[in-house]
Amino acid sequence: MKNIGILGSTGSIGTQTLNVINQFPDEFNVKYLSCQENIHLLIEQTKKYKPDTICILNERKKNALETALANTKVKIISGRSALLELSKRNDIDLMMNALVGSSGMEPTIEALKAQVDVALSNKESLVMAGHIINQIIEKNSVNLFPVDSEHSAIWQCLIGEKKEQINKIILTGSGGPFRQKPIEDFNKIKLEDALKHPNWEMGNKITIDSASMMNKGLEVIEAHWLFNLAINEIEIIIHPQSIIHSMVEFRDGSIKAQLGLPDMKIPIQYALSYPNHLESNWKKIDFTKINDLTFEKPDLEKFPCIRLAYESLEEGGSFPVVLNKANDEVVFAFLNGMIHFTDIPNLIEEALNNHEFINTPDLETIIEISQWTTKFIHDKISILA
Amino acid sequence: MKNIGILGSTGSIGTQTLNVINQFPDEFNVKYLSCQENIHLLIEQTKKYKPDTICILNERKKNALETALANTKVKIISGRSALLELSKRNDIDLMMNALVGSSGMEPTIEALKAQVDVALSNKESLVMAGHIINQIIEKNSVNLFPVDSEHSAIWQCLIGEKKEQINKIILTGSGGPFRQKPIEDFNKIKLEDALKHPNWEMGNKITIDSASMMNKGLEVIEAHWLFNLAINEIEIIIHPQSIIHSMVEFRDGSIKAQLGLPDMKIPIQYALSYPNHLESNWKKIDFTKINDLTFEKPDLEKFPCIRLAYESLEEGGSFPVVLNKANDEVVFAFLNGMIHFTDIPNLIEEALNNHEFINTPDLETIIEISQWTTKFIHDKISILA
Repeated sequence: MKNIGILGSTGSIGTQTLNVINQFPDEFNVKYLSCQENIHLLIEQTKKYKPDTICILNERKKNALETALANTKVKIISGRSALLELSKRNDIDLMMNALVGSSGMEPTIEALKAQVDVALSNKESLVMAGHIINQIIEKNSVNLFPVDSEHSAIWQCLIGEKKEQINKIILTGSGGPFRQKPIEDFNKIKLEDALKHPNWEMGNKITIDSASMMNKGLEVIEAHWLFNLAINEIEIIIHPQSIIHSMVEFRDGSIKAQLGLPDMKIPIQYALSYPNHLESNWKKIDFTKINDLTFEKPDLEKFPCIRLAYESLEEGGSFPVVLNKANDEVVFAFLNGMIHFTDIPNLIEEALNNHEFINTPDLETIIEISQWTTKFIHDKISILA
Repeated sequence: MKNIGILGSTGSIGTQTLNVINQFPDEFNVKYLSCQENIHLLIEQTKKYKPDTICILNERKKNALETALANTKVKIISGRSALLELSKRNDIDLMMNALVGSSGMEPTIEALKAQVDVALSNKESLVMAGHIINQIIEKNSVNLFPVDSEHSAIWQCLIGEKKEQINKIILTGSGGPFRQKPIEDFNKIKLEDALKHPNWEMGNKITIDSASMMNKGLEVIEAHWLFNLAINEIEIIIHPQSIIHSMVEFRDGSIKAQLGLPDMKIPIQYALSYPNHLESNWKKIDFTKINDLTFEKPDLEKFPCIRLAYESLEEGGSFPVVLNKANDEVVFAFLNGMIHFTDIPNLIEEALNNHEFINTPDLETIIEISQWTTKFIHDKISILA
């Protein structure tokens, strides 16, 4: 029986993680849950999965939660510092970090420091603090399991293989909803268009990241840290059908790929059950019903976020921190109707160009750089508005 | 340094094996070569790779070989019994069995008995004597490495995985040159049409097997023995582009695939270098230049050989022996203009229906069944002629 803690349990990855756990009552036990403020769903989850502790980030919702769960034994905590305390618990086997954006970084670090394996849906942790996280992993002999479908694919393709025999990895991406939109029309893109992903059902933030293709850029940086690969060993290819989730090319030209329907439950389950493939009844691929699988080069002119991510990885140090935090902020602004779609890469590039470079930032410095970036983007947006 | 013996060195797989070895002079050393009768090429190979022994099956060519190689130290032997003696040598690390058809069965068995690992291009060995071969493998702790691109793909996908977590394997096949030909026109198929494979350059026998799709049927039986899978765990899917070489579906719905250009050098090299992927300069896939990848159900009405193979595996015992030997004979007859393309499955089915069933034939019995089958087919063909 694996004891699991879930951060972000009411979001897209959090709820799908609980769907997986629900299929395997003898394999997994939920120890804690956390969410931002969706108390309705958190109450339901608490009654069903009986965690010993739940954490609500929005402190003003704590009372309502206590009232609703008065008849249970669950411990209820609230606020950011409570979340960080929860992340330090070492009485669980695995933390699923399904938090959104840069807020997920510190909980990842706390869990790994407590020698707890982390299933990481929060790629931003690695984008901002990959060098720090890898040091902790090495020191503590602890594991970071990817949850992103692309990185889960690479991970699965590398089972039993030697890293030094990799030629390159190929991250596939659907290309998002604007793959075929002419670049001249990008300034007319509306929020509702950007929220319509062709293949995957995901949270709002990652859906916008997919539309801008920053998601693929962040994945390049994530792959760099997860698999210890150089920038020229990480390639992006557009594969609109999202059936091949990613590939590894070995030195002899042999390529391994992992495939599946676009369903996050498979990579989530693998991160929970590794090294085992547990029998499941998720819908499986019927190849005779699959349309053509196609491939294209990514268009860096239409999607400058990819270029910005590669450049930030190349520069290193504080660049990926600014890239990631600026992206968090501009996506939030776009979701709230404050900026245009085309402002996303422009504002991020401005932040990158204007920040003060730091070579190997420690955690405190990363947080300071984040704060600077937030202020920079807010100032820029207030001028635009 | 691995010492390698090659049976069938002048054929398609044999010459490509030497091409691979040629790239890695520090990794592989050729100890012996054998061929049917192409002395011109065998002389060239002997001068280049300096084996200690060579074997020519056609005894009448031995003199010419001796004359041409008088200035070398190579030992020259000839005839079927010499080939079987050669197969028993235990001073090599790996035998590449690139013989064609049922004649490859006994050398596979002799090598494994001598505790020598075998790289098996000769799938007919397993089709006819899988139960005997697997017993020897278990007893002698020796390895059988697949060379067929499909089985190499499955093998690679299973590296580091547990067999009991497989849901099924999916063998891909191009569908051959007659995939799109209407069934009404099958009686007009000419030899030169059947010899034009759309993707792979291979020997004549396997090219005809690909046209009749018996090749895929034999591969199902081969996979059954190689990977210890039940009949309902082995699926065939038509994939005309031959880029995905085969796939494994695990119990959680995750699918692993191995991909590559249609180039036998990659699976040959992997069988030689396992568990390593050696750096090579074979042409690699450029996904941006790949046309659509498509998939279809196999058409069992147009290609009854697939049905015959599944039925033979289901029946077991002597059925696969008759299937394979009858196929050897009818393909030979078709290559020599003695029968029509549509006679291929019909004659094989007649042999299957008319043979006397034996449950678990030993090696001697397999040879007797083969002889009966040869006579049955020859008699039938003489009536047709």
